[in-house]
Amino acid sequence: MNLSVNKTEETASDSVEAAKNASNKKEKLADQVMQNPQVLAALQERLDNTALTPSSYIETLPKAVKRRIDALKQLQVKCAHIEAKFYEEVHDLERKYAALYQPLFDKRREFINGEAEPTDAESEWHSENEEEEKLAGDLKNAVVIEEKAEAGETNVKGIPDFWFTIFRNVDMLSELVQEYDEPILKHLQDIKVKFSEPGQPMSFSLEFHFGPNDYFSNSVLTKTYKMKSEPDKTDPFSFEGPEIVDCEGCTIDWKKGKNVTVKTIKKKQKHKGRGTVRTITKQVPNDSFFNFFSPIKVSGDGESLDEDSEFTLAADFEIGHFFRERIVPRAVLYFTGEAIEDDDNFEEDEEGEEEELEGEEEGEEEEDAESDPKKDSSQPAECKQQ
Amino acid sequence: MNLSVNKTEETASDSVEAAKNASNKKEKLADQVMQNPQVLAALQERLDNTALTPSSYIETLPKAVKRRIDALKQLQVKCAHIEAKFYEEVHDLERKYAALYQPLFDKRREFINGEAEPTDAESEWHSENEEEEKLAGDLKNAVVIEEKAEAGETNVKGIPDFWFTIFRNVDMLSELVQEYDEPILKHLQDIKVKFSEPGQPMSFSLEFHFGPNDYFSNSVLTKTYKMKSEPDKTDPFSFEGPEIVDCEGCTIDWKKGKNVTVKTIKKKQKHKGRGTVRTITKQVPNDSFFNFFSPIKVSGDGESLDEDSEFTLAADFEIGHFFRERIVPRAVLYFTGEAIEDDDNFEEDEEGEEEELEGEEEGEEEEDAESDPKKDSSQPAECKQQ
Repeated sequence: MNLSVNKTEETASDSVEAAKNASNKKEKLADQVMQNPQVLAALQERLDNTALTPSSYIETLPKAVKRRIDALKQLQVKCAHIEAKFYEEVHDLERKYAALYQPLFDKRREFINGEAEPTDAESEWHSENEEEEKLAGDLKNAVVIEEKAEAGETNVKGIPDFWFTIFRNVDMLSELVQEYDEPILKHLQDIKVKFSEPGQPMSFSLEFHFGPNDYFSNSVLTKTYKMKSEPDKTDPFSFEGPEIVDCEGCTIDWKKGKNVTVKTIKKKQKHKGRGTVRTITKQVPNDSFFNFFSPIKVSGDGESLDEDSEFTLAADFEIGHFFRERIVPRAVLYFTGEAIEDDDNFEEDEEGEEEELEGEEEGEEEEDAESDPKKDSSQPAECKQQ
Repeated sequence: MNLSVNKTEETASDSVEAAKNASNKKEKLADQVMQNPQVLAALQERLDNTALTPSSYIETLPKAVKRRIDALKQLQVKCAHIEAKFYEEVHDLERKYAALYQPLFDKRREFINGEAEPTDAESEWHSENEEEEKLAGDLKNAVVIEEKAEAGETNVKGIPDFWFTIFRNVDMLSELVQEYDEPILKHLQDIKVKFSEPGQPMSFSLEFHFGPNDYFSNSVLTKTYKMKSEPDKTDPFSFEGPEIVDCEGCTIDWKKGKNVTVKTIKKKQKHKGRGTVRTITKQVPNDSFFNFFSPIKVSGDGESLDEDSEFTLAADFEIGHFFRERIVPRAVLYFTGEAIEDDDNFEEDEEGEEEELEGEEEGEEEEDAESDPKKDSSQPAECKQQ
């Protein structure tokens, strides 16, 4: 009987939103009240009654009490600044521990890419499901698919498509990956998280290490996330720890004709005077995971981004955070699927699958998959939970 | 454009549950497969196809690759143990910072209980809504309610009912508070969080400090939560940081006839032989917030609790965590309502309220409140969001 007690599960943005709503509400209320005597009377009744919001309750308090509440708020701001220092120290700890994890991650990289072979001791693993696996093993013998597996055995180097499989298993990533990205991602050999040096502004970088390939000449693609660990001056109470506030990509040195982030389209142009028509080619942006390395710029001049850009940027920050917090530290569990969370309708899915096994619905499902050419049919349906 | 990047938002219990479901599923599958040749054929088709779960995909891999995956899992367990040490150091940091917050919390306690009066500098506060507050001020003059406020002004000590108001504002707590708990909670003067000493098993205590009162003679009621920061041997991958694993209350020295956690009922007993009837009185448990100090015992002998008890205990752990992480560090924001989160139907509530102001529905709402004697009608309806 355990309860997870990780740091707060609420997001700062939630509380900001709530504050805004509350503020709009109050303004509306004040307008109505000042214009309408009936409303005024109704409000008076509400004040006499106790059906008050906490903030309107505060308004009914004597001045001396309000003054003390203001003093408490001032103390609260001081707490927020101490909390900011706490998170900076946590960041230092994370840097310290990154160094402790690194030798294990290096071993991981070697096993994945076939640079080293685990010893018997290193590969010993007692699965909880050993009996089950034995059963599955018997089954395989029965249906003679093992031959195929054995045939390739001697040549296989490391764990093929390790990182690419993770991209397929994790919804948040597979949504970004296009068919033409796949052969490129198969060259991905490692992802590393690097923290900013002590004394530097708080940030972390994701390093995507690629083997030599026909697509670009970079061996590493990087994405850096800048963070902020200080209470906002205009809204200090919304502070909930470090936040990602900006990010920066890198230039990909695409080989000729291999840039998947643009596509070439042909366009007809008519000469205004002469009326002659010519065809020009034009490069336009193309959907691709590799756009991850050319993020939208956070406007620095106080101008706000449009809603679409804000959404895109928020999604990008979420992905960066997810790489850092989940995928890089526990890659093997995203590869095997053990870390893939069940979503709300897990129960339904499960029952659905049992039905399929017993009846003919499975065939239907496959037809669905084939009828959608964009859908990667090699994507296991059940991996899509995260 | 910020994104909160606090520690993982997933709970360990979620992933444990997911793992269990997945395991049950596999067992069922194996049973069906071995008994039914048609199912066997269907499964074979599934294997040839790529509609595989990540784990069944793993099963199709050559032995040498599986061996490397096992090596990665072994490394992953080592990572979990390093992570456990990380969280122990975070706990040390929290202890260090608790000492830095304490002077501010002591000041808070003094202002709340009228032990000290803030200076002008200490109570300076520029509200974002100053204009709005001015409007509200004008309004008050108009409806002459200020007189009432001014009248009490000179006598009011500190911030009356500070902690009690927080109990009313926070759903999770107000649900536990009975009408007869309220006069007791009005004597609550402070809540403190104390961390376990360095080198001791990880735990924290909540101290509820009460002023002298007619109900019990304790000046402090305590609740201690024991924590664990180590990966579970049978399920190391579910580790997500320290978890509350047990808790302990304290004995409340109730004054005669004041114990709200029991009630006396009269019961008629019939003598088996003689047939005479006598009336006995019996003490039975009674709903009360103060049951918080007599939690269910976590069974130590490996016997599992029944479902109800597990639920009660999980709710208790959640409350303990909430006091520690949210209420104690930011009490004033729960008093003013600024920290009260909007729940999903905030929008609906808001619209509902506007209608009430314009029409007659308010009266209806009050009737509802009055028709339920258990409902505390002094409880502001809108405070009930959290």
